[in-house]
Amino acid sequence: MARYRLTLEWDGRPYMGWQRQAHGPSVQQVLEEAAQSIVGEAVTAHAAGRTDAGVHARAMVAHFDTARELSPYRMAEALNARLRPHPVAVLSCDIVDDAWHARFSCIGRAYEYRICNRRAPLTFAKGLAWQVAVPLDAAAMTDAAQCLIGSHDFTTFRSVHCQAQSPMKTLDRLAVERCGEEIIVHAAARSFLHHQVRSMVGCLVLVGRGRWTKDDLAHALAARSRDALGHNAPPDGLYFTAANYPEN
Amino acid sequence: MARYRLTLEWDGRPYMGWQRQAHGPSVQQVLEEAAQSIVGEAVTAHAAGRTDAGVHARAMVAHFDTARELSPYRMAEALNARLRPHPVAVLSCDIVDDAWHARFSCIGRAYEYRICNRRAPLTFAKGLAWQVAVPLDAAAMTDAAQCLIGSHDFTTFRSVHCQAQSPMKTLDRLAVERCGEEIIVHAAARSFLHHQVRSMVGCLVLVGRGRWTKDDLAHALAARSRDALGHNAPPDGLYFTAANYPEN
Repeated sequence: MARYRLTLEWDGRPYMGWQRQAHGPSVQQVLEEAAQSIVGEAVTAHAAGRTDAGVHARAMVAHFDTARELSPYRMAEALNARLRPHPVAVLSCDIVDDAWHARFSCIGRAYEYRICNRRAPLTFAKGLAWQVAVPLDAAAMTDAAQCLIGSHDFTTFRSVHCQAQSPMKTLDRLAVERCGEEIIVHAAARSFLHHQVRSMVGCLVLVGRGRWTKDDLAHALAARSRDALGHNAPPDGLYFTAANYPEN
Repeated sequence: MARYRLTLEWDGRPYMGWQRQAHGPSVQQVLEEAAQSIVGEAVTAHAAGRTDAGVHARAMVAHFDTARELSPYRMAEALNARLRPHPVAVLSCDIVDDAWHARFSCIGRAYEYRICNRRAPLTFAKGLAWQVAVPLDAAAMTDAAQCLIGSHDFTTFRSVHCQAQSPMKTLDRLAVERCGEEIIVHAAARSFLHHQVRSMVGCLVLVGRGRWTKDDLAHALAARSRDALGHNAPPDGLYFTAANYPEN
């Protein structure tokens, strides 16, 4: 038996998210079917994080086990060949110890949220960024973001469907960067609540538009209530960008 | 009568190029139909440069005339509304003197060519970059590019369908930049021959792969023959990025 660790990139537009769903295509299904067609046996894939419908990945980490052993290079090549024409690619592949687990061994996750801050409709970035037509004050967003960093009860920024046992999370990084007409929000933590990044970004955009002050954001956090949420950003702009492990 | 100058962005994947074609959709057709539906009369659009099928634009400049005068802001908004769902957007719009012409007044044009230098298949960048799976030496490409800069007979790098009267062109800039797995080639000139950028990039990639030396590239240029061309890069990676005018 060999455990293959994969780094995956995918365009989330056609998918219901990572996890298998009865009502539509998922990245997990596409990957498992590609792997099964190579190894000739049922395969179950595990990822560092689940993602929502329409959310993208630049470097998701996943693994699966199989009795059929190929070199990591040949496995990556075979998977990429079978994944065509799906917009899912294996960026790297290695064989790891079977004590290692893509989800349970993961000690850090990072996301980027891409905002296209312009009046003109999106062309290349359609479905790949959140278009905000009114000018955003990125400096005000950076300033306000500071109150979310650290350990807090993030109930306000948590989906009603969240399965986490506790709403307490430690946010290690929340940085706002303007690059021309784009604003990128970088978020990093050991783990996140369901919808946490999108909910934080939605509220930061209220600050950037001048509708909320930094204090409004702090009060929303302190309220520990979904009713205090200002806005949940759409999935289009969200990218899973890194999973970190102790060996790294 | 008012002459409207537009800056346009488009994703070239669905189009036969800028110019109207009998056998498929073009950006000119999509733009003219949007304008006509606003002004209620026939409209002819002119662009700073024609582009091939599958080539993109980040900032193409074009103009059209109409007897129906709207403010530039309202014209841009109306065009963007009518252009949906086409991946063509008006980034800016103004009214200009009717002595000004998008093509004939243009004194400088710039392109970028995007290469994705990686083994894994493209996901987000499919149709938006040229994937080159073998490692490229960007420094060697930069070095070789120097021999193409300046005034030369570019017959080697010219399509057989090129309509220019002379193969002499002055290349002002040809720079190769590596950003992670991407290599961007920047090209600027008063004007280019048909396929010139793609043909230069195709040969620079031969240098980057180690198949051609800098001298091979210089000899190909000196041959002044299409037979000496090493490789023509696909349209996928090509972006029209700027048109310059005396007023700018």
